[in-house]
Amino acid sequence: MNVIDLTASFDALEEQWSPRILGRVNDCEMKVAKFEGEFVWHHHEDTDEAFLVISGTMRMGYRDEHGEHELIVQPGQLVIVPRLREHCPRADGECRVVLFEGAGTVNTGSAGGERTVEATYL
Amino acid sequence: MNVIDLTASFDALEEQWSPRILGRVNDCEMKVAKFEGEFVWHHHEDTDEAFLVISGTMRMGYRDEHGEHELIVQPGQLVIVPRLREHCPRADGECRVVLFEGAGTVNTGSAGGERTVEATYL
Repeated sequence: MNVIDLTASFDALEEQWSPRILGRVNDCEMKVAKFEGEFVWHHHEDTDEAFLVISGTMRMGYRDEHGEHELIVQPGQLVIVPRLREHCPRADGECRVVLFEGAGTVNTGSAGGERTVEATYL
Repeated sequence: MNVIDLTASFDALEEQWSPRILGRVNDCEMKVAKFEGEFVWHHHEDTDEAFLVISGTMRMGYRDEHGEHELIVQPGQLVIVPRLREHCPRADGECRVVLFEGAGTVNTGSAGGERTVEATYL
């Protein structure tokens, strides 16, 4: 057992949109990620995904039966994206986010493409 | 989908040592809890448990084959207690903590007793 420091973890994160794993809780993983700009629209077939904003502002685009929406998520706020929900995270400046999601989740989910990375332990 | 504000959630929490549920991620739940004083030694048979400190200082006592230890966990730091590990959270002043653990986890785990509460949605 050890203490994990979020600031040190984010400082060690080099790439944006490339989550790294902090630890595992049952079948889920806790990760850190840096967002800036716009990601890709995607969904995850088999996992919900929680985004807790630590610094900066995240804008979470999502689509439902009523159309396209965007939630503004500030530091100390979180949003949980249910499995199968199309979403697209965005941030105007750098945004530091803690993720909780199923172990082995790939960042681009169903969309794949060149921005796909498999998360490794930090 | 909605934005959950941690400060508002903690402000709505009335009782210490009585976690409330913010939302679910697969088979896990994200909860908020306020700690002050010393809890009870216990373990969880079937879940790991992540403690992310938001304000105040948590002291996490735990026991392993080398004896009894304590980790000091400050705001922006977290600790993951693996299933079956005996632990006892403590805080000198009020400490606000985000928990991530298996859905349905009871605060006192194996120990039971009068401080046992079943978490409900906030």
